[in-house]
Amino acid sequence: MAEIGGLLAEIVGEAHVLRGDQITEDYGHDEALGLAPVVPAAVVRPADTAEVAAIVALACSYGVPLTGRGSGTGLSGACIPVAGGVVVSFERMNRILELDLDNQMAVVQPGVTLEQLDRAVAEVGLVYPVFPGELSASLGGNVATNAGGMRAVKYGVTRNQVVGLEAVLGSGEVIRCGGKFVKSSTGYDLTQLIIGSEGTLALVTEATLKLYPRPPFSATVLAPFATLDQITAAVPRVVASGIGPLMVEYVDLMTMASITAGGMFELGIPPDVKDRALAYLVIVLENRRDDRLGEDVEEVAKLVGGLGALDVYVLPPQSGAQLIAAREKAFWLAKAAGADDIIDAVVPRASIADYMDEAADLARASGSLVAGCGHAGDGNVHLSVFQPDQSVRGRLVHDILAAAVKRGGAVSGEHGIGVGKKDHVEALESPHKVALWRRIKQAFDPDTVLNPGTVFDPEPEAQP
Amino acid sequence: MAEIGGLLAEIVGEAHVLRGDQITEDYGHDEALGLAPVVPAAVVRPADTAEVAAIVALACSYGVPLTGRGSGTGLSGACIPVAGGVVVSFERMNRILELDLDNQMAVVQPGVTLEQLDRAVAEVGLVYPVFPGELSASLGGNVATNAGGMRAVKYGVTRNQVVGLEAVLGSGEVIRCGGKFVKSSTGYDLTQLIIGSEGTLALVTEATLKLYPRPPFSATVLAPFATLDQITAAVPRVVASGIGPLMVEYVDLMTMASITAGGMFELGIPPDVKDRALAYLVIVLENRRDDRLGEDVEEVAKLVGGLGALDVYVLPPQSGAQLIAAREKAFWLAKAAGADDIIDAVVPRASIADYMDEAADLARASGSLVAGCGHAGDGNVHLSVFQPDQSVRGRLVHDILAAAVKRGGAVSGEHGIGVGKKDHVEALESPHKVALWRRIKQAFDPDTVLNPGTVFDPEPEAQP
Repeated sequence: MAEIGGLLAEIVGEAHVLRGDQITEDYGHDEALGLAPVVPAAVVRPADTAEVAAIVALACSYGVPLTGRGSGTGLSGACIPVAGGVVVSFERMNRILELDLDNQMAVVQPGVTLEQLDRAVAEVGLVYPVFPGELSASLGGNVATNAGGMRAVKYGVTRNQVVGLEAVLGSGEVIRCGGKFVKSSTGYDLTQLIIGSEGTLALVTEATLKLYPRPPFSATVLAPFATLDQITAAVPRVVASGIGPLMVEYVDLMTMASITAGGMFELGIPPDVKDRALAYLVIVLENRRDDRLGEDVEEVAKLVGGLGALDVYVLPPQSGAQLIAAREKAFWLAKAAGADDIIDAVVPRASIADYMDEAADLARASGSLVAGCGHAGDGNVHLSVFQPDQSVRGRLVHDILAAAVKRGGAVSGEHGIGVGKKDHVEALESPHKVALWRRIKQAFDPDTVLNPGTVFDPEPEAQP
Repeated sequence: MAEIGGLLAEIVGEAHVLRGDQITEDYGHDEALGLAPVVPAAVVRPADTAEVAAIVALACSYGVPLTGRGSGTGLSGACIPVAGGVVVSFERMNRILELDLDNQMAVVQPGVTLEQLDRAVAEVGLVYPVFPGELSASLGGNVATNAGGMRAVKYGVTRNQVVGLEAVLGSGEVIRCGGKFVKSSTGYDLTQLIIGSEGTLALVTEATLKLYPRPPFSATVLAPFATLDQITAAVPRVVASGIGPLMVEYVDLMTMASITAGGMFELGIPPDVKDRALAYLVIVLENRRDDRLGEDVEEVAKLVGGLGALDVYVLPPQSGAQLIAAREKAFWLAKAAGADDIIDAVVPRASIADYMDEAADLARASGSLVAGCGHAGDGNVHLSVFQPDQSVRGRLVHDILAAAVKRGGAVSGEHGIGVGKKDHVEALESPHKVALWRRIKQAFDPDTVLNPGTVFDPEPEAQP
């Protein structure tokens, strides 16, 4: 592989190829729990699209697997390299190429982070509305996993924001698809197909994103409930009201305790209410007018109060922001608490309580613990799984994911499949569909150089 | 082909196969202008998914091309059959299978019409927000072309509403993709890929659609302008205001004249203003609260008035509805006026005026006339082309489409490519991209039985 390193250096310059001891530990993994890191043969850091295309062409000639990498904040192991393979790190392709105010769009390179973009668009009164909870995440990574987050109930996920891409196919060709327009019926939608493909179809080198007016006013409503069933019953009513909330989250008891633990902040809930609360509903509203926000808050509070909430609190701005910030860090809390795996299944919104009941039953039966929070507005259930035994845990995770699929849901709402969940997908999805995915990959990546073994194994025969 | 008819009858019953004189003229075309109809060898009307799968399997065995057909209201010729082929008409698969109020979704068969769905969802206070202007259109057809319409600026197009599909692949397998959830990162998004593929990848047998609260209040603001440039400059300001209009349309002088001609209705514009107006901006607002609608109307009127409008009219409810209804029928007016072709290119929103200028220059230079209206909020320009000479017209249409692509736009915003625009697409799109489309089609439809020759010709070698 020394040879490949040298050839890569001819493309990007010696300074931008890392080999041997130069490869820091970070390049071998993302933030997924319980997956072994892999040290790549080399890390290459291209400066532009032409270099990426040359790297792919080289990889095809030498049969070397390539794994694209943004900030490495993924939760499915999609950027864990293949042994002997090369990591293509987009850290140098980190420029916001254009903020187009008339069309309300941004054109970015894949290494741009959400934080960097948010800072730039806030200055012009706009917002890129996908906040998956980790602002150091890169846009390229967000496109690869179709990142979601708490604001999806109002704005949708990454898929709904990306209107155009430039990408290098596994065949080495550079294509541009979509553009600065929000509608097109001009052939197959390659933009949508590449989004969420976890680096297995193409390496994204540029993305065009929708921006929105940044509403200046927001408020957080917190409602403790005695049962999760009541929360699930309340959510469709909130959505149906037409108020259009920015976030509709539920937080279970254990997660709320860890969020507020350590005196981080006080929510002002009296002890008698706290004692009866089994789960919390958090609703964030935003508006371009302060008077309308006030009216909407009142309406939501009244609505939720009439649907069984033990009480309803409109949080002071700072507590509201702190609660949301802490909720965004729920993954880190779970990790710190020793969670062995995480699940982010999606089910029809109205099935959350029923689904959570089954998950809890399955956990109990296997001597495990599951706890969590999730995007109640869009049926995305986040569960931390505490079960150190790998085989017991594997069966439990499978059963919990199967329970989602049985309800018409899917294995992952926003984290992706990566390498961590691919066996579950293979077992739970229709074989016709997985076979079709394989044929589509073949159409993009005939030499199987792009992130092989991610989402699904290359060939059914090749599986262990 | 008598043999195929008999075999089809074994699947669906003799009553549901049409042959020879039983095939009415309608089955040979859609509403596209200037394309020759083709009489199919047979028309088959399946009752369910199993019958569709059996028809596809039969077609693969006998190498018979299949063309799916909804209501035949398309504008690109995508449902014109192949000579010797079979039309699969979904007229019997026309049931709304479920209205799920908790999840705010509808599950429909492909033959359900927009009118039928709107009637059903209106009864429960909901709306399916895609109104492409022809309520007799079928949902299956809408999915196939990724139908748009005037409300796209607020709600997006068909692509943004369809969360799940059941479909029969060209390989005869039945797959289900997506479901009653609005986010998923579980493998390649087949739902999005099938939407807009104009029947070339799969026959859709069921669709799950998002529904929304139906806002009870709406108002129409009409603003005449002395130049289209001023309208284009005003649109980004309206969008950036955060008011969230339902429709933002421009109508040129000639189209407005034909809309209001014959005393259909009066807009109350004084003659002196009318004389100076060269184009009209139409903004429709909706709200769940009457008081907020009033405030928004006032804000929009003030905004537009400050941006060069000759005057601003808030239309009485009936005139507003009539104007919108007439605008939806603009295609029929163009057809009645003798238009020889229509264009629905999309460009970046801010480039509309500049684009229209070039289109007018091109038309003038070729001794032709173009006129139209369009979705100013999303850059979708509808032009009627008046030029009887086929060869002159072909060159002009190519040049006008090339001018859109040059501005970062695309050939079709919502009508699709069908057979009518495929030569232009082949000439204007990157060959790498079209080659990739061909490989994707191969992955879905290895025997090339589904709508061959639509969107692109099967093989570059096979082209005339």
